[in-house]
Amino acid sequence: MKMSGELLPWLMNAMDWAGTFAFALSGGLLGVKKGFDLFGVLFLSFVVAVVGGIMRDVLIGAVPPAAVTELHYFFIAIIAGLITFYWYSRVVSHQRQILLLDALGLALFAVLGAQKAIEHGINPLMAAIMGMLTGIGGGMTRDVLAGDIPFVLKADLYALAALAAGAIVAVGNVEKVPPSCSMLLGAGVCLFLRLMAIYRRWRAPIAQPGKHEDT
Amino acid sequence: MKMSGELLPWLMNAMDWAGTFAFALSGGLLGVKKGFDLFGVLFLSFVVAVVGGIMRDVLIGAVPPAAVTELHYFFIAIIAGLITFYWYSRVVSHQRQILLLDALGLALFAVLGAQKAIEHGINPLMAAIMGMLTGIGGGMTRDVLAGDIPFVLKADLYALAALAAGAIVAVGNVEKVPPSCSMLLGAGVCLFLRLMAIYRRWRAPIAQPGKHEDT
Amino acid sequence: MKMSGELLPWLMNAMDWAGTFAFALSGGLLGVKKGFDLFGVLFLSFVVAVVGGIMRDVLIGAVPPAAVTELHYFFIAIIAGLITFYWYSRVVSHQRQILLLDALGLALFAVLGAQKAIEHGINPLMAAIMGMLTGIGGGMTRDVLAGDIPFVLKADLYALAALAAGAIVAVGNVEKVPPSCSMLLGAGVCLFLRLMAIYRRWRAPIAQPGKHEDT
Repeated sequence: MKMSGELLPWLMNAMDWAGTFAFALSGGLLGVKKGFDLFGVLFLSFVVAVVGGIMRDVLIGAVPPAAVTELHYFFIAIIAGLITFYWYSRVVSHQRQILLLDALGLALFAVLGAQKAIEHGINPLMAAIMGMLTGIGGGMTRDVLAGDIPFVLKADLYALAALAAGAIVAVGNVEKVPPSCSMLLGAGVCLFLRLMAIYRRWRAPIAQPGKHEDT
Repeated sequence: MKMSGELLPWLMNAMDWAGTFAFALSGGLLGVKKGFDLFGVLFLSFVVAVVGGIMRDVLIGAVPPAAVTELHYFFIAIIAGLITFYWYSRVVSHQRQILLLDALGLALFAVLGAQKAIEHGINPLMAAIMGMLTGIGGGMTRDVLAGDIPFVLKADLYALAALAAGAIVAVGNVEKVPPSCSMLLGAGVCLFLRLMAIYRRWRAPIAQPGKHEDT
Repeated sequence: MKMSGELLPWLMNAMDWAGTFAFALSGGLLGVKKGFDLFGVLFLSFVVAVVGGIMRDVLIGAVPPAAVTELHYFFIAIIAGLITFYWYSRVVSHQRQILLLDALGLALFAVLGAQKAIEHGINPLMAAIMGMLTGIGGGMTRDVLAGDIPFVLKADLYALAALAAGAIVAVGNVEKVPPSCSMLLGAGVCLFLRLMAIYRRWRAPIAQPGKHEDT
């Protein structure tokens, strides 16, 4: 299989759409579960799809953010929100597949986010963090708006996988590796970590304040 | 009644002040209810009055935001906060009137927000959303800071009314209607929807996960 | 003791490092208490250390924010987070000392934040508020992410002390006092107010909705 000039952009677009869709579904699902109205569900779908990228763009000075100038995020998010609202139980029954699409989206958002930060002159360390933020910002905001503690702070290597992807892109840039190579590698590592978290229950160490609580 | 060049700006200023005041009262009321100290109550008043506009300005690249360069929002918010703090029960007894002022503010903020986004070169779809965000951003942040789920996600056509106002301004711009006309129409529709929500209990459809919950 | 050109910058750097460290410890402590994983604890440490400054920089148009271009905040935050994660009970046992370092950080962040806003052409009133925001923004975000109501809204003269510092810098600017003088005075007042809050339990008046609740 030749990873040629035609295939790579096509693949990245497909991952972008699939990932955005999965992100938006996760927002819609939480909105329905919390008893939001139709508007609230659509809003939460949209938030997950775009807020990570918006945070990155505001921080690197790329204003107005891509999510404001490009419209496909909006339409994908609305479609995902409507599907969740009207076919909730059917969407819930595909939660495993959604997790896999979501991992694709996370991988792509993280590498693209880090690359964009580098192109805007951000230093490699912060570019890696900008990649992570692109991947997790939407989900964090979703959880805060729904009254939950962001799950990325507690579980599943989610943010760590995104950070790994961003870090690989940043290191690749320092070492003058072609961006497409480091982005593919970064996305692959992110995907691998998420799959291990989903199927093998890999976890970061959890704080155990109870064990030595002495307040 | 002639909606002349003198009357329209005067009316809009009056709506702006009244709306800002009502927004700030809603922040102060929640702050008092949650047992905040005087500072927290004033802070929450200020947040509701300015955060929607700040979000819009940061996203469309109009930095520093109007809320930072124009001071009347600050003074109105502080006055509203002080009134709520020291005369809480009297303010609570006027909750219906506050809701009506709030609807005025929502209508005005939404149309002004959409118009400002258009003037900064934002596409019509996102300009409509920027109008909505101007109207609801402060209230959403108020609820998150007070530990509640933003009520605009759950009820009362609140965000939908603001979105309708923004959309009418955006469509008016595409169709080359004079801004003052589409802004008046947009504000009127927003006000109408809010009044129907308040007096006739119009609602957007609510998600009912319980009905087909199968997780 | 001569407060000369060499001593002042050295002192401010020391306060900056100590304050950032204390801020980050407060994030790490809350993360451990809430059962976050290692990543979440580090993330929360980083958030407290940088988000106040990021909010200020985004609002005054100083993008990318200093927290993105300067790396020492990141490393101090990570070290503080690791220490909290692995030596939680020992860190908890120094909570009083952490509060004092935190007061130092608050004082410095507030005066530096106000001064930076002034240098970016922000009016004195909003510059004072930007100083306050620099000091309290990180802690507020910490509490929201951890699912708590921001404690600065409820207690301890925390935000008020930061606002006093910012206001003194702003007034000093209007009155053409040398910045280093007004910054020293502002930091001193902030520190004094925090010490009074910690040792003498000074408080702002608290809202008492229950006393005259009539809803």
